[in-house]
Amino acid sequence: MKGLKLAVENKAKNIIKVKDAVIGGSELVLMAGPCAVESKEQLLLTAQALKELGVKILRGGAFKPRTSPYSFLGLGQQGLELLKEVADDTGMAVVTEVMDPNEVQLVAEYADILQIGSRNMQNFPLLQAVGKINKPILLKRGLAATLSEWLFAAEYILAAGNNQIILCERGIRTFETYTRNTVDLSIVPIIQSKTSFPIIVDPSHATGIRELVLPVSKGAVAIGADGLMIEVHPNPAEALCDGEQSLTPTEFAELLKEIKPICAAVGKTIS
Amino acid sequence: MKGLKLAVENKAKNIIKVKDAVIGGSELVLMAGPCAVESKEQLLLTAQALKELGVKILRGGAFKPRTSPYSFLGLGQQGLELLKEVADDTGMAVVTEVMDPNEVQLVAEYADILQIGSRNMQNFPLLQAVGKINKPILLKRGLAATLSEWLFAAEYILAAGNNQIILCERGIRTFETYTRNTVDLSIVPIIQSKTSFPIIVDPSHATGIRELVLPVSKGAVAIGADGLMIEVHPNPAEALCDGEQSLTPTEFAELLKEIKPICAAVGKTIS
Amino acid sequence: MKGLKLAVENKAKNIIKVKDAVIGGSELVLMAGPCAVESKEQLLLTAQALKELGVKILRGGAFKPRTSPYSFLGLGQQGLELLKEVADDTGMAVVTEVMDPNEVQLVAEYADILQIGSRNMQNFPLLQAVGKINKPILLKRGLAATLSEWLFAAEYILAAGNNQIILCERGIRTFETYTRNTVDLSIVPIIQSKTSFPIIVDPSHATGIRELVLPVSKGAVAIGADGLMIEVHPNPAEALCDGEQSLTPTEFAELLKEIKPICAAVGKTIS
Amino acid sequence: MKGLKLAVENKAKNIIKVKDAVIGGSELVLMAGPCAVESKEQLLLTAQALKELGVKILRGGAFKPRTSPYSFLGLGQQGLELLKEVADDTGMAVVTEVMDPNEVQLVAEYADILQIGSRNMQNFPLLQAVGKINKPILLKRGLAATLSEWLFAAEYILAAGNNQIILCERGIRTFETYTRNTVDLSIVPIIQSKTSFPIIVDPSHATGIRELVLPVSKGAVAIGADGLMIEVHPNPAEALCDGEQSLTPTEFAELLKEIKPICAAVGKTIS
Repeated sequence: MKGLKLAVENKAKNIIKVKDAVIGGSELVLMAGPCAVESKEQLLLTAQALKELGVKILRGGAFKPRTSPYSFLGLGQQGLELLKEVADDTGMAVVTEVMDPNEVQLVAEYADILQIGSRNMQNFPLLQAVGKINKPILLKRGLAATLSEWLFAAEYILAAGNNQIILCERGIRTFETYTRNTVDLSIVPIIQSKTSFPIIVDPSHATGIRELVLPVSKGAVAIGADGLMIEVHPNPAEALCDGEQSLTPTEFAELLKEIKPICAAVGKTIS
Repeated sequence: MKGLKLAVENKAKNIIKVKDAVIGGSELVLMAGPCAVESKEQLLLTAQALKELGVKILRGGAFKPRTSPYSFLGLGQQGLELLKEVADDTGMAVVTEVMDPNEVQLVAEYADILQIGSRNMQNFPLLQAVGKINKPILLKRGLAATLSEWLFAAEYILAAGNNQIILCERGIRTFETYTRNTVDLSIVPIIQSKTSFPIIVDPSHATGIRELVLPVSKGAVAIGADGLMIEVHPNPAEALCDGEQSLTPTEFAELLKEIKPICAAVGKTIS
Repeated sequence: MKGLKLAVENKAKNIIKVKDAVIGGSELVLMAGPCAVESKEQLLLTAQALKELGVKILRGGAFKPRTSPYSFLGLGQQGLELLKEVADDTGMAVVTEVMDPNEVQLVAEYADILQIGSRNMQNFPLLQAVGKINKPILLKRGLAATLSEWLFAAEYILAAGNNQIILCERGIRTFETYTRNTVDLSIVPIIQSKTSFPIIVDPSHATGIRELVLPVSKGAVAIGADGLMIEVHPNPAEALCDGEQSLTPTEFAELLKEIKPICAAVGKTIS
Repeated sequence: MKGLKLAVENKAKNIIKVKDAVIGGSELVLMAGPCAVESKEQLLLTAQALKELGVKILRGGAFKPRTSPYSFLGLGQQGLELLKEVADDTGMAVVTEVMDPNEVQLVAEYADILQIGSRNMQNFPLLQAVGKINKPILLKRGLAATLSEWLFAAEYILAAGNNQIILCERGIRTFETYTRNTVDLSIVPIIQSKTSFPIIVDPSHATGIRELVLPVSKGAVAIGADGLMIEVHPNPAEALCDGEQSLTPTEFAELLKEIKPICAAVGKTIS
């Protein structure tokens, strides 16, 4: 961690406010929604269900980084428009990924929080570009990124002028292939002791297995995560992306019910 | 997991009773004590403190697997005698590691639970030897063992006739070097859904960092672990082994206090 | 590898010609030069020495992806100009990294081969951008990229219309920290049996240790690599980047001398 | 490597002689034979073919460490007897694995070199037991063993009194699953610069793929390995163990022919 100038300043937790949501405070922040924006109907249906359950931040991909160029790559700008429309309808904030420095301005027009995905954690021109805007950045951990590399990626954003950074643990790549990735929950208290960044956990990508989303969410809340990012789709079996790890709104409601007592146990509120 | 015959039988949790302790039931089982048995005084002091805090199983190494042959390798049989003496004095059960098939009978005379350490997870003669005794076996996950390999290691013990197996996640080896290992808490619900083995978590070895023992314990309990194995030493600064990850009895008492509400939240009792 | 359409076509090796160099043919291709372009003097001195030794492709970074934003990030466009100037002076071809889709056109004006660095192997907008130009692309393996992910990254470039792809193994991230990365030489024959891409090896980044560059080069040539990419600096002790893995021109000359018999043994020529 | 006392002494290569073979000298040592001893016919057929090709050391497993207890676990003492019989018939030396400290004396009666397999690299009682005999030990690298851990394992043997140690790189576990393991050829020159141990490479276990045995052998010889350990079976399709990575004697003869020029290029002889 030698060489970090801004990321390890020892100050109070950097609390970030986005519409009704407060990230890094006493309330567990929930970001939920589909892997990819597929249609108005899909998004609205999901958002309304989530809104009723108290979710304040809607996630959904418009530009999708996919291993294969032949996979569904997202609706692009049309996806952004749908996100904004649905967010306005429901009063939710929107978090969505940006992959290209050229598109930072465009995405910033529609989104409340810009996500840097794990494949782009060391995409330095992109980090510099999002460092120049005045919106919160959700910086996912690279799939083989050490703690130090992750904090230096945040440092790029800080050094460019943006200190509204939320970190997101989403699993790392290990020799274990049963799960999509191995979730490193111990990074949560490490981040919290070294930095002032809020840190959330994405159990959907970390495990890739629907049945593990609930238990990993429980573990994440207990270990002190500031929030959760969870994939929810009205019909996972027909999702264009990551259906096998998505919850239905009903399953997500059940998850909220089950994590509430753990929130209480660690002194966090949940809406 | 193709090829497993006994380890994946779908039956109820295999509840294991050892003296006053019940492993795999509704009570969170606590195993605590020093990395290595160093002296009567050290062990008794630790055990009495732990006993008062409700710990029913005392851990302590008599035969120590150390990377270097010049490190403290344990007191051997004398260590076993001290463990038994202190266990009898306090009414606690004892868990201790066995490294050599030749010593299984010896260790079984003194210990209530025999531990197979991570370096020996695929020491097949040792697995076969502990499969032939009538005492519970604590089988730690190998440091680079896949889920499948771990279950096949258990299968060796089962096939030899011993079905009293407790699994222990103690961190896996990854590219991340900030922590000693990376704790894979997601393995806990996987084990619980696939097998009938109780599974506990060892946050001391998983992280190697004293300050992380508490938060990882919280996460482990919330995700559903059946118990915790924690290194406690009356004077970590002078420990002959793993001092930097050991808690004092006072810190351990604090840990218990902090995990109690989480136990309650997930429906577990704690003594 | 299911889903690949273009990368695994079974045809003859795709031979790529750049100025005097032929990549994928019977001659071992050598790419050498400093990690970063630092000055006209440094670059010219290096290039002249390399040219005399038969090197046809000069490497040098103008845009440098560095973990820390406070490290030397390269001379940018000025670095490109120096590369072009020196290349023209010496008759060498130039390979240099491009990090930003916005800069693909710019870099293509100066460079003969555009390099995609390992951190950007899954920077899909960048892959698509270099897929639209008519210059060879050197696609380095991501530091934790599987074979399949690497080939899909190439597929992005192919699908965008550019089939002049050279792959480069530069070490992968493992638990071993003695070397900077672990060089996976077995990937060379795998690539050669599955695809028509030429593949070269970068022993400098793979090991991070000067003394290992020669032996790894020997192994790479013997296993069938189509070329080597090696960092050479006139004064490694004062290099602004990666000095500890750079060879002096003299050491590089020695390396050439030592790999010549191995080239002969595997039927490769070397200039 | 701090703490090593004997393994890193800077002296000349420790040359080990076993029957007609010299390990660590100018001749590339070849160890070949079936994964497991299956029958007299299988072993004799293989040994005679290998002997004719100049192989001086016959490998074959009598005690097999297998992930599943239901796999073929070897013929045990009968396998040892067959190995000795065939070795005596052909004049070859024998290398075979020992897994149990109890069996070290037994195996030493039959074998010329005792192998410690990768799963047992940190089986310290076993290391101490083979440290007390007067036969060479082939110490394979653990599948997730760092350089330092490997050398400390050798130190256990040295400290017990046996300095006839041959190291064997057999691939390490990484995220890449296309090959069985990832062969780390760069460890060869590292070992040679730090220690006096001969080091050989096992391309069969390192890759798990028949077609890769030849190219990896070429790379290993060129990088400086003192020898190769290769699985050869008269009928790989019917092998009881590791058939998919075994060569036929004919394929092995072809391999020898192809590595000869590389031996010449690096100044090694080959019988």
